[in-house]
Amino acid sequence: MALRAAVAGASGYAGGELLRLLLAHPGVEIGALTANSNAGRRLGALQPHLHPLADRVLTATTADALSGHDVVFLALPHGQSAAVAEQLGDDVLVVDLGADFRLRSAADWERFYGSPHAGTWPYGLPELPGARDALEGSRRIAVPGCYPTAVSLALFPAYAGGLAEPEAVITAASGTSGAGRTLKPQLLGSEVMGSMSPYGVGGGHRHTPEMVQNLSAVAGEPVTVSFTPTLAPMPRGILATCSARARPGTTAEAVRAAYDKAYADEPFVRLLPEGQWPATASVQGSNAVQVQVALDPAAGRIIAISAIDNLTKGTAGGAVQSMNIALGLDQTAGLPTIGVAP
Amino acid sequence: MALRAAVAGASGYAGGELLRLLLAHPGVEIGALTANSNAGRRLGALQPHLHPLADRVLTATTADALSGHDVVFLALPHGQSAAVAEQLGDDVLVVDLGADFRLRSAADWERFYGSPHAGTWPYGLPELPGARDALEGSRRIAVPGCYPTAVSLALFPAYAGGLAEPEAVITAASGTSGAGRTLKPQLLGSEVMGSMSPYGVGGGHRHTPEMVQNLSAVAGEPVTVSFTPTLAPMPRGILATCSARARPGTTAEAVRAAYDKAYADEPFVRLLPEGQWPATASVQGSNAVQVQVALDPAAGRIIAISAIDNLTKGTAGGAVQSMNIALGLDQTAGLPTIGVAP
Amino acid sequence: MALRAAVAGASGYAGGELLRLLLAHPGVEIGALTANSNAGRRLGALQPHLHPLADRVLTATTADALSGHDVVFLALPHGQSAAVAEQLGDDVLVVDLGADFRLRSAADWERFYGSPHAGTWPYGLPELPGARDALEGSRRIAVPGCYPTAVSLALFPAYAGGLAEPEAVITAASGTSGAGRTLKPQLLGSEVMGSMSPYGVGGGHRHTPEMVQNLSAVAGEPVTVSFTPTLAPMPRGILATCSARARPGTTAEAVRAAYDKAYADEPFVRLLPEGQWPATASVQGSNAVQVQVALDPAAGRIIAISAIDNLTKGTAGGAVQSMNIALGLDQTAGLPTIGVAP
Amino acid sequence: MALRAAVAGASGYAGGELLRLLLAHPGVEIGALTANSNAGRRLGALQPHLHPLADRVLTATTADALSGHDVVFLALPHGQSAAVAEQLGDDVLVVDLGADFRLRSAADWERFYGSPHAGTWPYGLPELPGARDALEGSRRIAVPGCYPTAVSLALFPAYAGGLAEPEAVITAASGTSGAGRTLKPQLLGSEVMGSMSPYGVGGGHRHTPEMVQNLSAVAGEPVTVSFTPTLAPMPRGILATCSARARPGTTAEAVRAAYDKAYADEPFVRLLPEGQWPATASVQGSNAVQVQVALDPAAGRIIAISAIDNLTKGTAGGAVQSMNIALGLDQTAGLPTIGVAP
Repeated sequence: MALRAAVAGASGYAGGELLRLLLAHPGVEIGALTANSNAGRRLGALQPHLHPLADRVLTATTADALSGHDVVFLALPHGQSAAVAEQLGDDVLVVDLGADFRLRSAADWERFYGSPHAGTWPYGLPELPGARDALEGSRRIAVPGCYPTAVSLALFPAYAGGLAEPEAVITAASGTSGAGRTLKPQLLGSEVMGSMSPYGVGGGHRHTPEMVQNLSAVAGEPVTVSFTPTLAPMPRGILATCSARARPGTTAEAVRAAYDKAYADEPFVRLLPEGQWPATASVQGSNAVQVQVALDPAAGRIIAISAIDNLTKGTAGGAVQSMNIALGLDQTAGLPTIGVAP
Repeated sequence: MALRAAVAGASGYAGGELLRLLLAHPGVEIGALTANSNAGRRLGALQPHLHPLADRVLTATTADALSGHDVVFLALPHGQSAAVAEQLGDDVLVVDLGADFRLRSAADWERFYGSPHAGTWPYGLPELPGARDALEGSRRIAVPGCYPTAVSLALFPAYAGGLAEPEAVITAASGTSGAGRTLKPQLLGSEVMGSMSPYGVGGGHRHTPEMVQNLSAVAGEPVTVSFTPTLAPMPRGILATCSARARPGTTAEAVRAAYDKAYADEPFVRLLPEGQWPATASVQGSNAVQVQVALDPAAGRIIAISAIDNLTKGTAGGAVQSMNIALGLDQTAGLPTIGVAP
Repeated sequence: MALRAAVAGASGYAGGELLRLLLAHPGVEIGALTANSNAGRRLGALQPHLHPLADRVLTATTADALSGHDVVFLALPHGQSAAVAEQLGDDVLVVDLGADFRLRSAADWERFYGSPHAGTWPYGLPELPGARDALEGSRRIAVPGCYPTAVSLALFPAYAGGLAEPEAVITAASGTSGAGRTLKPQLLGSEVMGSMSPYGVGGGHRHTPEMVQNLSAVAGEPVTVSFTPTLAPMPRGILATCSARARPGTTAEAVRAAYDKAYADEPFVRLLPEGQWPATASVQGSNAVQVQVALDPAAGRIIAISAIDNLTKGTAGGAVQSMNIALGLDQTAGLPTIGVAP
Repeated sequence: MALRAAVAGASGYAGGELLRLLLAHPGVEIGALTANSNAGRRLGALQPHLHPLADRVLTATTADALSGHDVVFLALPHGQSAAVAEQLGDDVLVVDLGADFRLRSAADWERFYGSPHAGTWPYGLPELPGARDALEGSRRIAVPGCYPTAVSLALFPAYAGGLAEPEAVITAASGTSGAGRTLKPQLLGSEVMGSMSPYGVGGGHRHTPEMVQNLSAVAGEPVTVSFTPTLAPMPRGILATCSARARPGTTAEAVRAAYDKAYADEPFVRLLPEGQWPATASVQGSNAVQVQVALDPAAGRIIAISAIDNLTKGTAGGAVQSMNIALGLDQTAGLPTIGVAP
């Protein structure tokens, strides 16, 4: 019998992507669709690609609207999930696509998000050491941020293998959908097409502490992260270029072996053959991840690069993958693994 | 038991899209993959998004390589399909994505393609009146051109309803993948990004006689077509803007009714609610078609607009849909209907 | 001595383009910069490319702020120009980039803009027959709309030559800056990149009566216009694909001759050699216009296509060109004629 | 009297940009235009934006064709400049846009370019300490690579100020025109639009030794460079994200002061106000450079970011600027400083 799933925040990009995936999921039936300012509107006017749901009318995001489901996805602005989640039963699987339950450090949360810390839920990046176990059977999941997903998958094998110094330098380029459906001048098509620009430079981006948390946990020691996000002229995709000084004596073979080991059994992550590098087009619209790594002998650094679709593996696809694991389904159920390219 | 399918021309964009779809098709297993100049190369180097087939090596396109399959897809340059097809048994389903068997008029073929006419096969646009019947049980299918697909779906209901004069004026914007993976300077990213440009203006585009054929058949009289294709700065998608003078006495209600009737039972075509217009993003990567129509009272013209993905519904998806029909499968098997948007 | 020019609406795209051009104009010095909601802000925060003016602070758009200049450019929302203009002296050159003074028909104005008609000023498209004379010495200029500029330049020679039937069918693709710096969801980069979509279909676009006015004046009889604008995934540029049934007996030579004659002495319009077609990239950032024309013998239609930069020749460049003519300067002063390509 | 300038390699992107700029240069008249495989073709067919030169026919690149000019620009494939240059008189200003004369280390040249080292010419990045003096009066100029231009301008003030450790980590995103007009599959519009991808990862990019040379010279000690270039879906522009560990005790004020000092008198480089970050759109088509810098206290790193147009300041504009200096002209002659934005 199909699981009944509600989506809170169905008018945004993350919500729309969730619905695209859930409509193709063999074990899920779509229940309530809620929104904030768009409550009362037809979904077809807001998400014209979601034909089968075009005539559904969005309702307000309330505990009542969300009750009676097996799974509730929360695609809400940061800071709004806790109030909703605590009204849902412990037996309901609540999957939070917001940041509210990602960070273990209350101090980090408060510094970067400016509100009281709500708690910490099992972290929905199953490829990280230990993460899959914590997800199995869980009824609460914190879906990672899109940048931390891309960055952690690029770099964690180097730290798991003890090959990298604990100072990562990261630049990532993101498609504009990563900024959500927000009406800001800098997100207008006229501004972003034909242009690359950075933002949140110098340690200010909210995803930074999440990367620090993930990499430090794997490394077993504090890792500092210099993170610079850039906005790229494309709707989707993240290309994360990550590097760290190689520990003395690190060989290219050891680097390769660490990555081979990390991803040998992962259905969504593909370590590319040597010499081939990731491209975001290859994973567009899919839950796939492309990873490649190299050792630069002159600079003494490991360079690891990943490509994901920020809305799929980076948000809604990652959420569905973790839902599958929590519920004991095949983790690939309903998730495309082949990108729409070219 | 799964049908075994071969793809000739697996290194091109049409071949790659076919494989993306066939990999997700529940009733198909992928057999031989052939190419011309790329024979001998790993598919992963040419189609990096097709992970599950990355280590397959392309072989030369020969009758031998293609024999022993239930279905053979030919994604070859125009004029090469006939020689291959005649070596395949009558019981093998041959689906030609080239132009070779689309036109009924040998004179048109020779004028536009410059080689002897090879014949005419059942036409793979099931939404056209009569087309579905001809496809059922057929072992030969001519997949329509991408522009004729978009244009015919936009305009045929107006002609089927006897509402339009037989002089259509059409402008279509296509993503660059419509031009294939050809190394021409005008297809370089540097040239196409940020630019719109026409080509084949004044009746010279090879898809024109195919549109004339389709619309004339529906109208029951010769329809002239003024067709101007333009290259748009996007990888995929066709937006076809079509118009024809309305016959005297035509009302907006009659126009709407004709389109409602044409598409009431079509799983892939969505006639949008009044006031909402197609966008290629909404159908990206899917076999879906968005259609809308209006009557301009001041100009006395019917304006019908469709959006498709040129590689999916316009090529490979249309091919799979027709294969499904020919083989008695559910016509939607293996075909996404929701576009990857935004 | 330099002319002193004020720009009302300096925070929008038209205003920004005006300033880019005026900064390079040898005979102009920039005076007041005003805005509505952005009054009080630094220009550098809004138009980061206009370095030399970065520290200028925008003031409110008032008659006081605009007084004391030789030229006042009004780049205001439609309907706001008249109130400002009437407070400026008759000896001040007022150049209105809005629609307020373009239409001669009060009925058309009221139908399409919904407010009382303010009047008609000399029309700033000097290439149109008679227009240059009306501009010389004038102290009021109505700058044409971007679409009417592209369409009129593509089609008027056919009507001037008596070669086309009075029923034009036009599709135009515009870059997103044509919609201004307005915060609408459909203008977000995530929505427009990778997508083509129409709007204002069926005769509803406000630029339609302006095209009718221009073409009818040249033809000497009423011309109907079926106009479909589409939004293209690029920041700038208009490609206008225009056609009309050829009058009986029209030859390709006659068509060519009409266009040769129209543009022989125009510094900004280039009739391309036969076989070469316009591209918006070629005119990006410049006041240049590319035009080409063909006769389709099978469809019996003249196809004329033009490419302009909507912000330059289509708005701010056209405004400066007309200013130059009105003031007796070289009409090319300050205006680039070579596009930024690729 | 105008200087007569020849351009060898006029059919490529660098050559086209040179001609765009030289056509607007008040002191230059355009002489011979030569090409390799495109010799004999009309320039208008290859560079349709260069209207005034459309009917010029390209000749073969020979010493004869290039003789009799005051300035000769060489926009040739790497390794071809020396043979041409040695046939030109010592009194002719030869400006090489290729790499041939950029590197001082013959070993580096041979390792990265694989041919014998031709020598070293004065380096055309006038903003670097000492560079302007070497250019004045010189008759030979080596124009820097596009990436080294962007990277050196972003980082050299930190090294000049003694603020950064000698290990730079750099990621840069480039528009596709940086790869030239080469017919490679990965440069097709279908492949690059909507996609970000790296190349030359791990120290292999040929511009790396040039960055090392520039930064080491300023630092007064060897600086290692980890450089990762990425291809961005835009025709033009480079965004260089550069960082280096801050030396102990470095303050944000000291960083700011170093950059203020470096760029106080540079007409093309704008150090943005604090909090505002570069965007490539702001400098498109211009010789302008936007620079910003920050100190990340948690990561202990200086992050410096620059935006240039790779074809203008990064290639042809830089060449004209250096030509101006060498010949004693105003260094800004003929060079736009305001980008075409949006």
